[in-house]
Amino acid sequence: MTTKNILDEQLISVVDSLSDFNSLKDVFHSTNNGLPFPSGKILREIVECCRELLFPGYFGNAFVDRNTLKYRMGVGVERLNSLLFDQILAGLCFDGKCTEEEVESKKKLAGQIASDFILMLPKMRSTLITDVIAAFNGDPAAKNYGEIILCYPTIKAVSNYRIAHALLQLGVPLIPRMISELAHSETGIDIHPGATIGDYFAIDHGTGVVIGETAIIGNHVKLYQGVTLGAKSFELDEEGNPVKGIPRHPIVEDNVVIYCNATVLGRITVGEGAVIGGNVWITHDVPKGEMVYQSAVKQSSKPTI
Amino acid sequence: MTTKNILDEQLISVVDSLSDFNSLKDVFHSTNNGLPFPSGKILREIVECCRELLFPGYFGNAFVDRNTLKYRMGVGVERLNSLLFDQILAGLCFDGKCTEEEVESKKKLAGQIASDFILMLPKMRSTLITDVIAAFNGDPAAKNYGEIILCYPTIKAVSNYRIAHALLQLGVPLIPRMISELAHSETGIDIHPGATIGDYFAIDHGTGVVIGETAIIGNHVKLYQGVTLGAKSFELDEEGNPVKGIPRHPIVEDNVVIYCNATVLGRITVGEGAVIGGNVWITHDVPKGEMVYQSAVKQSSKPTI
Amino acid sequence: MTTKNILDEQLISVVDSLSDFNSLKDVFHSTNNGLPFPSGKILREIVECCRELLFPGYFGNAFVDRNTLKYRMGVGVERLNSLLFDQILAGLCFDGKCTEEEVESKKKLAGQIASDFILMLPKMRSTLITDVIAAFNGDPAAKNYGEIILCYPTIKAVSNYRIAHALLQLGVPLIPRMISELAHSETGIDIHPGATIGDYFAIDHGTGVVIGETAIIGNHVKLYQGVTLGAKSFELDEEGNPVKGIPRHPIVEDNVVIYCNATVLGRITVGEGAVIGGNVWITHDVPKGEMVYQSAVKQSSKPTI
Amino acid sequence: MTTKNILDEQLISVVDSLSDFNSLKDVFHSTNNGLPFPSGKILREIVECCRELLFPGYFGNAFVDRNTLKYRMGVGVERLNSLLFDQILAGLCFDGKCTEEEVESKKKLAGQIASDFILMLPKMRSTLITDVIAAFNGDPAAKNYGEIILCYPTIKAVSNYRIAHALLQLGVPLIPRMISELAHSETGIDIHPGATIGDYFAIDHGTGVVIGETAIIGNHVKLYQGVTLGAKSFELDEEGNPVKGIPRHPIVEDNVVIYCNATVLGRITVGEGAVIGGNVWITHDVPKGEMVYQSAVKQSSKPTI
Amino acid sequence: MTTKNILDEQLISVVDSLSDFNSLKDVFHSTNNGLPFPSGKILREIVECCRELLFPGYFGNAFVDRNTLKYRMGVGVERLNSLLFDQILAGLCFDGKCTEEEVESKKKLAGQIASDFILMLPKMRSTLITDVIAAFNGDPAAKNYGEIILCYPTIKAVSNYRIAHALLQLGVPLIPRMISELAHSETGIDIHPGATIGDYFAIDHGTGVVIGETAIIGNHVKLYQGVTLGAKSFELDEEGNPVKGIPRHPIVEDNVVIYCNATVLGRITVGEGAVIGGNVWITHDVPKGEMVYQSAVKQSSKPTI
Amino acid sequence: MTTKNILDEQLISVVDSLSDFNSLKDVFHSTNNGLPFPSGKILREIVECCRELLFPGYFGNAFVDRNTLKYRMGVGVERLNSLLFDQILAGLCFDGKCTEEEVESKKKLAGQIASDFILMLPKMRSTLITDVIAAFNGDPAAKNYGEIILCYPTIKAVSNYRIAHALLQLGVPLIPRMISELAHSETGIDIHPGATIGDYFAIDHGTGVVIGETAIIGNHVKLYQGVTLGAKSFELDEEGNPVKGIPRHPIVEDNVVIYCNATVLGRITVGEGAVIGGNVWITHDVPKGEMVYQSAVKQSSKPTI
Repeated sequence: MTTKNILDEQLISVVDSLSDFNSLKDVFHSTNNGLPFPSGKILREIVECCRELLFPGYFGNAFVDRNTLKYRMGVGVERLNSLLFDQILAGLCFDGKCTEEEVESKKKLAGQIASDFILMLPKMRSTLITDVIAAFNGDPAAKNYGEIILCYPTIKAVSNYRIAHALLQLGVPLIPRMISELAHSETGIDIHPGATIGDYFAIDHGTGVVIGETAIIGNHVKLYQGVTLGAKSFELDEEGNPVKGIPRHPIVEDNVVIYCNATVLGRITVGEGAVIGGNVWITHDVPKGEMVYQSAVKQSSKPTI
Repeated sequence: MTTKNILDEQLISVVDSLSDFNSLKDVFHSTNNGLPFPSGKILREIVECCRELLFPGYFGNAFVDRNTLKYRMGVGVERLNSLLFDQILAGLCFDGKCTEEEVESKKKLAGQIASDFILMLPKMRSTLITDVIAAFNGDPAAKNYGEIILCYPTIKAVSNYRIAHALLQLGVPLIPRMISELAHSETGIDIHPGATIGDYFAIDHGTGVVIGETAIIGNHVKLYQGVTLGAKSFELDEEGNPVKGIPRHPIVEDNVVIYCNATVLGRITVGEGAVIGGNVWITHDVPKGEMVYQSAVKQSSKPTI
Repeated sequence: MTTKNILDEQLISVVDSLSDFNSLKDVFHSTNNGLPFPSGKILREIVECCRELLFPGYFGNAFVDRNTLKYRMGVGVERLNSLLFDQILAGLCFDGKCTEEEVESKKKLAGQIASDFILMLPKMRSTLITDVIAAFNGDPAAKNYGEIILCYPTIKAVSNYRIAHALLQLGVPLIPRMISELAHSETGIDIHPGATIGDYFAIDHGTGVVIGETAIIGNHVKLYQGVTLGAKSFELDEEGNPVKGIPRHPIVEDNVVIYCNATVLGRITVGEGAVIGGNVWITHDVPKGEMVYQSAVKQSSKPTI
Repeated sequence: MTTKNILDEQLISVVDSLSDFNSLKDVFHSTNNGLPFPSGKILREIVECCRELLFPGYFGNAFVDRNTLKYRMGVGVERLNSLLFDQILAGLCFDGKCTEEEVESKKKLAGQIASDFILMLPKMRSTLITDVIAAFNGDPAAKNYGEIILCYPTIKAVSNYRIAHALLQLGVPLIPRMISELAHSETGIDIHPGATIGDYFAIDHGTGVVIGETAIIGNHVKLYQGVTLGAKSFELDEEGNPVKGIPRHPIVEDNVVIYCNATVLGRITVGEGAVIGGNVWITHDVPKGEMVYQSAVKQSSKPTI
Repeated sequence: MTTKNILDEQLISVVDSLSDFNSLKDVFHSTNNGLPFPSGKILREIVECCRELLFPGYFGNAFVDRNTLKYRMGVGVERLNSLLFDQILAGLCFDGKCTEEEVESKKKLAGQIASDFILMLPKMRSTLITDVIAAFNGDPAAKNYGEIILCYPTIKAVSNYRIAHALLQLGVPLIPRMISELAHSETGIDIHPGATIGDYFAIDHGTGVVIGETAIIGNHVKLYQGVTLGAKSFELDEEGNPVKGIPRHPIVEDNVVIYCNATVLGRITVGEGAVIGGNVWITHDVPKGEMVYQSAVKQSSKPTI
Repeated sequence: MTTKNILDEQLISVVDSLSDFNSLKDVFHSTNNGLPFPSGKILREIVECCRELLFPGYFGNAFVDRNTLKYRMGVGVERLNSLLFDQILAGLCFDGKCTEEEVESKKKLAGQIASDFILMLPKMRSTLITDVIAAFNGDPAAKNYGEIILCYPTIKAVSNYRIAHALLQLGVPLIPRMISELAHSETGIDIHPGATIGDYFAIDHGTGVVIGETAIIGNHVKLYQGVTLGAKSFELDEEGNPVKGIPRHPIVEDNVVIYCNATVLGRITVGEGAVIGGNVWITHDVPKGEMVYQSAVKQSSKPTI
């Protein structure tokens, strides 16, 4: 039998403190009353809905019948359209107050973007199939494409990236970042929606991979777990705030392989076909076809740690 | 139609083996019959409840109205108090059997701790706001504070840490560790509740970060993904068990930046304003203002792996 | 009030594109109509069911009473048997079409494997208890075995591994990989079910750990977060596909410790009692009892990044 | 293992038939695309929310603390306001297509009605308390008011009626009928929201009670299970449709008792203090203070059925 | 804090008693191990699925768009087919043990029946629309067809009846009864699936209505709440068991109205256009066009109960 | 996009009114802070748990295996014991404030009652089997015992009654009434837990049946839908309150049949083997073996209603 802990005067006073708007002022959220708010839960549904449309037969109601696939795709597109509309609108309205007219025009825009996004799905499927093939070819332990789609984290992370990237290209704020964070939490792979990534892209294992906002990755590139394509320290403007939007992450050309835990920083270029060994710290260009690896380790027969 | 696989005699005998208390003896859980047991599910609710109180308008029922915020905070505090009471009591009773009198006194203690924790929330909110500002200032890709609160893993990990740390300071066993593991699983960031961390603390991306039990971190410190603030091998007592509670993790002073995948081990000091490059292995002090980075890589035009 | 975004002709045409079987052909899933499909959700239940059987009193309905433990174990075994049967069958049928006769014989096989797996549980419990002891002895911050079982990610990852490994040994395809990915997503620890791992195995923190398919690990081995036991580049067959099944991951002998973010690649041997420091890149044998660590860092008083 | 039953051509043709708008034409629902639709599920939540506001401490989170009741009432009112707004709007838009301007004006109206309804709650509570007292006084088996509130169907049915009646008075279509049907399904008591019912109203057991749209019931009236206050055959207009809105149900004055399964039909008056025995069929006025009961039964020692 | 009530020896012995097969022998359920069992939960889903197909736009995802209705109907038919198959098979296997061959032939039969049922849906929709019209025309309080479909219990009860009747005609045991009981519990209307009911059938309010297995009801019939179309005492066979399948319930011809709580028993005929007043007990034929009603009540100015 | 309806000052003032304790005073619930409160949801689980124990193989996890039935019964008894303990305690504490000592002694009592109840289950099963047989023998439409158990409302209502009656006999307040109301809502059958009912008891169809607190029913009795065994007007004490506990409902001896909608009121006796026809109103004894039925109806060829 639980004896509840009653709120006494002291705790009542905490309620007052926590309700004090001044204590919130820097982070107080300021959309108009009642404007929609993005929902992580709905975004997760959107991602699942996209996965079912992109890879029918693997996600959701798994069975695919040639006679009825069209019904499934139709209901899926309708649902996706409806869910996306609300979240895109929420993204468009997130930052700052809108007049009623602005809201109306944002509703039109949200509807247009949802449609435009859906029109990109067939192309997205064919690109993702190249990613599946890349992952399969890159892992001797894989038995078939189905296994890749069902359980390789790279497919989850890269499909979220491709969805988020498309939405960002269409001008949607916030929502793409939330979608990439869903994959980050699920897989440990953090790909910024702003990055540009070619076909046949594979990440093996993937935990700890970071790909920054302005990174550019070619075709047939393979990364291992823990690889960072990041920025060096960045410029500050006159008020000491970071300058936004400057290219500051690496360019990785076609057919590059980067081994695990390598850190590649700054707007450098890793040339076509180069190989970067694990655990290195690279802040300068790597020429085409070259291989770089860590200096020799020291060895000792007397443990020192 | 599923044809069930019936349990035959052999399987019945497994039931007997699995029910044999001897096979459990090292790990058999030994609280009194019926004493409460900590629940990961409830702890997750507690964390969500704290987040709603700390950042109203972002979590839970997202809309915040000046006229009704107080009702929400009031109901939230009442609910938090009730949930916390049960879990704190569960933590206090976890390790070993209690007499009825001990249980009664632990109930009193649990009620007191729950109240004391709630009284810390307003201060915790103001500290977490400094963490939000630090994350925003540290990422050129961030658009506004709201985006940081909604989707940056650092806020999830650090808010769980600050909650867990407060509970640990108030003397609650086990529960703080479970709360920090919730964040670890969600974000890949593993901060021991015992660590001491200053204001304006930011972790970028964060997957793979480990901060040990006795680490001390100053203000305005920034860590990147994969950074370890760990211990070297530790002392064993006469019976070969590790000696508990010895300071064994680094001290990181104000304004330090540590880049990704750097490993900093032992009770060393990283001096104020120092910068540690990525992928290094540091087991000695780093002086104030100094920068350390990895030795040059080797380069070869003939791939060797 | 939501105004729905109606599907117009353009979107209807996307439905047609997405329903085009040609666009799916490489990844179209090809089991017989209606054959069972593996379910991530059910596999999660299976893992939870195993955990409750292996560590009664910690998971599920937490309270353990000597008088009634047998009832719980009995119901648990029955439920596990039933859930496993379906998923094993789904695994057996995943790859390719079967005749009705083949399905019947796979059903018999699935039933047999489910039984055989369950018979392995008592042994699995005693092995996992050694893992609990190893984790406890390896962490001065741990207070008791219960804390290890309840919140240390190593136990989650290693118990999933031991379950998946047993199923793989019994000849089940796909399902073991899905089970190990569940742990990977939850803990950031990626252990291939094909790896061989001895007793008293502990992984500290664990995020980013990767253990490859053909790795062999002795007893009393301890790994820290970010350690990779991986493969170097692998052989391709005449058609350019990776050759499957060749031993290509390290052998780690008894009593080895590998510190965080170390990368150990290829079929090399890390000899008994060796210690590998963090952030190193190792592609050659490490002799018994030796310690290897990273070259000295460079230090500078002028920040360069 | 389930072998699915595949849709063949015949079944595909059923899909076409069921999608034929002509087959729906009489019942095709015709609101504008995307206008809100009433939800039985949300209406159930609205009723529960009202019950928690009207009888705090009995429904929802049961515990009531004097210090925090206001927070609960505040959050409840806010939630009720939000849920009601959507459903009232759905009711206002249900019947026929609206222009955008009409929708806007209906939104204003819905907001006003939701507020007006909430303002009626304190009065509704005091009326419902008289119903509780009436039920308690009318049943020797009842032990206390709490038992009445918690388990007597009369309270459920009558509170739904009072809620629905208030909404109908405020001009909301459809929603009140849906709310009264929720109680009908739960309790077997069918009170039309249009009926007028005084204070201290009690229905004992209640299954099968029907109270028609234009019935008028005084104070201190008690009905037993199966009582009908219904209409005789009604007038048809020139096109053969029933004429709407004509008073056609009984007037039951103060202090009347009607025993079980009595049927009272037509715009007749049951005078003050009258008692109607069970199983009678009454289509004419019953004078004040009179009692009416069924003719004597026939008795036989030879069973005939 | 809950102190559990531990099972002592006495309670352990109850477990033994309850596990004694002899105590179950009369009611022990005897299908083959693992054969499917009917599920009330799935049957509820089947009914909801039928309602969505029959009245699209009212149930489930409420919005109907001409462009996408076909997708919804297609997915609905596919889902219904799959759910029905399992439940029909469960019904066919419920009573008694089957050999493997019998199970196989029952699977074929179940698939055939599911298809045949679905082929009946378009006709069922047009019949149910007549029931909607009848309910609307019969109630001056109804505002439009939509209100009838959304909230009149007659539509719920009669649609369940028409579904159950179709399944019974197709030879499915048990399942039809379970479906009619779902409506009985929800509406208080108990229509046996074996009854034969014409078009334009309406039940007003409906609580307490009972329509027996062999009743035959014409077109344009209206019943009020509490009407019973039942059987008189029935014949017993030589062993004292009731003789099954004998016509024993009334025939109600076209255009009959029966008022509330009337009891009509036995294989009698209520002739075309007859009207039966409320609360009567009828066990003989009622001629065409006649009206019967209860004898005059007795009136007294001295309450006697 | 929903524009929320903001709470204005007027609505804020409603919050104050609803929080005014004076407005609640008659119905304010007055247990000690934090004492447990009965839960309808848990009582529903308790009933389901009892049904699974009483009729294994029909409810819950339906499959029954001779080898494992005992495990199921064991887990079920343990769960029932735990759920019952809390609810019985809640019932014991419902009415009025308790000192800490009283709570402790009520906890002991609750534990004792839960055990005593469980000890009654084997006997309850054998009695309920007689009820199943009675229902089967009484309905020519029934095909087997399984159908009765799975879908006849009489079994649901009577099993809830037998559970509630046992708890009432053991001295539990409130909870029994809540359990009988669960069945009332589900089936329309309202049996007061205080009634005394013999073996082989069947209610056909059942909607509208009411059996009062002091009714006594023999063996082999059958009731039809709408039958009331009720009280006439009852005595008031000097303060005008009903006198509690006086026998005021009928005694129905063995082998009686009462047809539908018959109303039998007051402490009268319906003698052995008597038959009461439908729709009658009986307030005097019916001799053994006699049959009573309604007076002849009036017939007219001119409709009068």
